[in-house]
Amino acid sequence: MRTTVGIIGGGPAGLLLARLLHRAGVDCVVLEARSREYVEQRQRAGMLEQGTVHALREAGAAERLEAEGLVHRGIELRFDRERHHIDFPSLTGGRTVTIYAQTEIVKDLVALQLADGPPLLFEAEALAVEKPESATPVVRFRHEGRERTLTCDWVAGCDGFHGISRDAFPAGAGRSFAHDYPYSWLGILAEVPPSCEELIYARGERGFALHSMRSPSVSRLYLQVPIGTEAADWPDDRIWDELAARFAIDADWTLNRGPITSKSVTPMRSYVHEPMRHGRLLLAGDAAHIVPPTGAKGLNLAVSDVRVLARAFVELNRTGSTQLLDRYSEVCLQRVWQATRFSDDMTKMLHAQPDGDVFDHRMQLARLRRITASRHAAAELAANYAGLPLPV
Amino acid sequence: MRTTVGIIGGGPAGLLLARLLHRAGVDCVVLEARSREYVEQRQRAGMLEQGTVHALREAGAAERLEAEGLVHRGIELRFDRERHHIDFPSLTGGRTVTIYAQTEIVKDLVALQLADGPPLLFEAEALAVEKPESATPVVRFRHEGRERTLTCDWVAGCDGFHGISRDAFPAGAGRSFAHDYPYSWLGILAEVPPSCEELIYARGERGFALHSMRSPSVSRLYLQVPIGTEAADWPDDRIWDELAARFAIDADWTLNRGPITSKSVTPMRSYVHEPMRHGRLLLAGDAAHIVPPTGAKGLNLAVSDVRVLARAFVELNRTGSTQLLDRYSEVCLQRVWQATRFSDDMTKMLHAQPDGDVFDHRMQLARLRRITASRHAAAELAANYAGLPLPV
Repeated sequence: MRTTVGIIGGGPAGLLLARLLHRAGVDCVVLEARSREYVEQRQRAGMLEQGTVHALREAGAAERLEAEGLVHRGIELRFDRERHHIDFPSLTGGRTVTIYAQTEIVKDLVALQLADGPPLLFEAEALAVEKPESATPVVRFRHEGRERTLTCDWVAGCDGFHGISRDAFPAGAGRSFAHDYPYSWLGILAEVPPSCEELIYARGERGFALHSMRSPSVSRLYLQVPIGTEAADWPDDRIWDELAARFAIDADWTLNRGPITSKSVTPMRSYVHEPMRHGRLLLAGDAAHIVPPTGAKGLNLAVSDVRVLARAFVELNRTGSTQLLDRYSEVCLQRVWQATRFSDDMTKMLHAQPDGDVFDHRMQLARLRRITASRHAAAELAANYAGLPLPV
Repeated sequence: MRTTVGIIGGGPAGLLLARLLHRAGVDCVVLEARSREYVEQRQRAGMLEQGTVHALREAGAAERLEAEGLVHRGIELRFDRERHHIDFPSLTGGRTVTIYAQTEIVKDLVALQLADGPPLLFEAEALAVEKPESATPVVRFRHEGRERTLTCDWVAGCDGFHGISRDAFPAGAGRSFAHDYPYSWLGILAEVPPSCEELIYARGERGFALHSMRSPSVSRLYLQVPIGTEAADWPDDRIWDELAARFAIDADWTLNRGPITSKSVTPMRSYVHEPMRHGRLLLAGDAAHIVPPTGAKGLNLAVSDVRVLARAFVELNRTGSTQLLDRYSEVCLQRVWQATRFSDDMTKMLHAQPDGDVFDHRMQLARLRRITASRHAAAELAANYAGLPLPV
């Protein structure tokens, strides 16, 4: 097979890139290692910045999102048995965020892709990117029981943190930065209407908890848990009791309980690989960087990488100039580092230290109090959460 | 001896409290353990918030400060060989800070105190505060070779972090919060005009450096050094070379060198004691809390404690009500925790980690870049640095 842009990975980054390129007349092929059923059920993020919604609209993939997405005007910070609303529109000049599950975005993009192309191969497992420095890099992959090759002008590595694209960077061609946080998240999906109208970020000595939602009838909740926790150690009642304790403020507020349909434990890590390009191989999304989920930035960063990348390929196709491609890594990394900083700040402000450090506890409360007392501090949180401007 | 308010400690907190009480007709006595010569030469901070200048003016002690103090409109952040001015007036609605050495404030206050009272005893070493829960607490002290007592209605513990006042809190009557930072500061005084018009906070992989000044002819500079550093390990040339390397930006900027008249190493610690009152004993300034010097908050916090305390004693004297005294600890601690948070943020953003953590390095750069890119982030820094409002 031969294509202009070989896209490794059929998650939201790879699929969105394919849609944007296809609509601009740039030839591409998407290779996804797993089955359609698998990728359409993978539970991930669900908080979309306005720029992310805009990109999906540009890709012609926002119809259901616009009908079903829940527009949120802010978040709630809960600590010391108090609740504080951070109002995004008044703090950011009118911006909002939209709740719509990543898994629904994937379904929408897969349906469009299968309907009018470009090619999307499921269960096509990329094995290696070869000759990324050459004019015709090759993706070796396994499909329908045999090894095949995809010869490309360019390769987009959208295959996530555990993908193979990053491995094609030769030793010394990049540098990585990592930080592991000393706690994990236990996440659940529950068939119960959310107990709140906007996301609740709750901080207390028992640990952090987050109340999110997928739809008016499905709640998504998270608990800070120790590293090494097994989901099986947490029977449903224990989860609901712990969530209720962490969200508790007063007798007027109660947590709705319901059947739990999914439980999983996620580690908390920051990781950035520099640069995001080697030769004709360009990384986007989790393949290049991951953030702890506290700031809801992972999916949004992947989409902003893809917007920059799509624009660069379209310019190349239209004018023959690689100017935007040459700036791709530098432009994306500015926004990546800012999102990593914000995610790190949110994570450290909200999670209880496993060693129970009482000074750190008071510092967290002072930071939260400052956000609720200072318009500048609140506006900084809102601007970062709602999403910094797309790089130019 | 008998007095209304026994003040332990003749540093800026104790002396300012004495002046404010004296002018309002409240009887007091100040006991200072060291000699006049010693306290007038002790090198400490030199950056005054507007509220601090205002308090000295209220105390009738601002004449020389207003003639000789250097008004600064901001600070400079230096990193990645770039310089960024943070402009306080435009970010805070017109506020500035004033450079005037703490040691000069002490001289001014001592002179006033000796001229028209109230009593200030030098080399009067407080040994213990007895019966702080009673209506007549007693300060035992040693003066002119013999032990004496000062019987008080109230005792103000202004004797610093290593003073004896805090020891009078019985076990269980308080709780302390501490954090030690993994580096120290080597500070010098030099007989050379400052190389800059405003303070420079410089961050780099070699470590933090701060360029401050005492007057148009005296520079004050600091280097981040490892814990355990001895000033003797740093000959003058080594200090100037290291400072020059840390402040380096381009060929146009040079560091003025001159005779070094003082060298000392300071540990970096945060500490808060809660509450700040036990019975009729009230702690103010370093006796209750210390911050790392990065945010220039130590002296200013001491002065804001004293303003609250003086107002409370004056109200008691005027109306017989202890209402303000009863709220003293709570009111001060709000501001104390905010200043501790700010000092912690500044410290962690600017100092190189001793283990050379590269992720932390990038987080620091991202935080600094955000401050230079976002008006809200810059305004938060400016508001905290120039001083949060005095508690009401």
